[in-house]
Amino acid sequence: MVTLRFVTRNQHKLKEATSILSQYGISIVMENSINKVEIQSDSLEEIVNYALRLNCVDWLVVEDDGLFVDSLNGFPGPYSEYVYRTIGLRGLLRLLQGSRDRGAYFKSVVGLCINNEVKLFTGIVKGRLSEEPRGSSGFGYDPVFIPEGYDLTFAEMGEDLKNKLSHRSRAFNNLATYLTRIN
Amino acid sequence: MVTLRFVTRNQHKLKEATSILSQYGISIVMENSINKVEIQSDSLEEIVNYALRLNCVDWLVVEDDGLFVDSLNGFPGPYSEYVYRTIGLRGLLRLLQGSRDRGAYFKSVVGLCINNEVKLFTGIVKGRLSEEPRGSSGFGYDPVFIPEGYDLTFAEMGEDLKNKLSHRSRAFNNLATYLTRIN
Repeated sequence: MVTLRFVTRNQHKLKEATSILSQYGISIVMENSINKVEIQSDSLEEIVNYALRLNCVDWLVVEDDGLFVDSLNGFPGPYSEYVYRTIGLRGLLRLLQGSRDRGAYFKSVVGLCINNEVKLFTGIVKGRLSEEPRGSSGFGYDPVFIPEGYDLTFAEMGEDLKNKLSHRSRAFNNLATYLTRIN
Repeated sequence: MVTLRFVTRNQHKLKEATSILSQYGISIVMENSINKVEIQSDSLEEIVNYALRLNCVDWLVVEDDGLFVDSLNGFPGPYSEYVYRTIGLRGLLRLLQGSRDRGAYFKSVVGLCINNEVKLFTGIVKGRLSEEPRGSSGFGYDPVFIPEGYDLTFAEMGEDLKNKLSHRSRAFNNLATYLTRIN
């Protein structure tokens, strides 16, 4: 099996992808020599598709994800990273203060270039936002996201459990299943 | 003088640009047949530059703007339109509740394609955010923005006064001065 090249500078994402794909005997390395062009769009699919089409080389992988909060019309969505850097977890929780509806989901879209085509794989995990940030593992919004059926935030779970549930792991599992099928 | 073609679908922006440029005898029309690619970036200059370079035809004009709130690390900045559509004015004000520092500025960057080059023109207006939305003229964040030296929000001012002060009018004035000089 070939080695996938993951266009990212995020070590956490690479680690998560590696952990999933290695179970299928698929290896993935960081590709940081390519400038990833991210467009503004409400759709992660569009963002990933655009980034890969500009530079469609076989085995190149791009991923984008976001946290979509129900009562905030999907905010922060595709702009989760910017929102995290500016208003942060505290800002996000503040927007939900006093709100009974704390429903949210994480979504990840993984794109793969193969035979000059872009294939997209999606992973979603539903849940709700905690009242306060809790836990210290993971990254980004992990301390405020409680997946359905659990009382722990992603940041309170061990890596193994988070990797079973997370949006990103689901998307990479779908990618792995596809690769296993075509090989 | 030629006619500028403004790549936008926003009637408010076209009206504001027309009102400024007509004072210099420059005409501008809406160009909505071109798909404007907006990248994700903290820099309005980068966003405008990328959009124009993809399709650099003489007299094409692109504008991008944002509201940058001091105590929120510049949020919502280049994503002001998305933030307006999702959490809205109420959400933004909520993030500032109890905050003494209500400083913010509007910034507009206008790009012009000429001789296969992109020229950028900037306009900034400093001010602060109101406690509540006030006024009904204008659009977007106008009801919550009070420019320096005034007690009225942009949405409470007449169009004439707003056009003297606004970031967009300043950027288009700079464009007009440039065009007048080279003609």
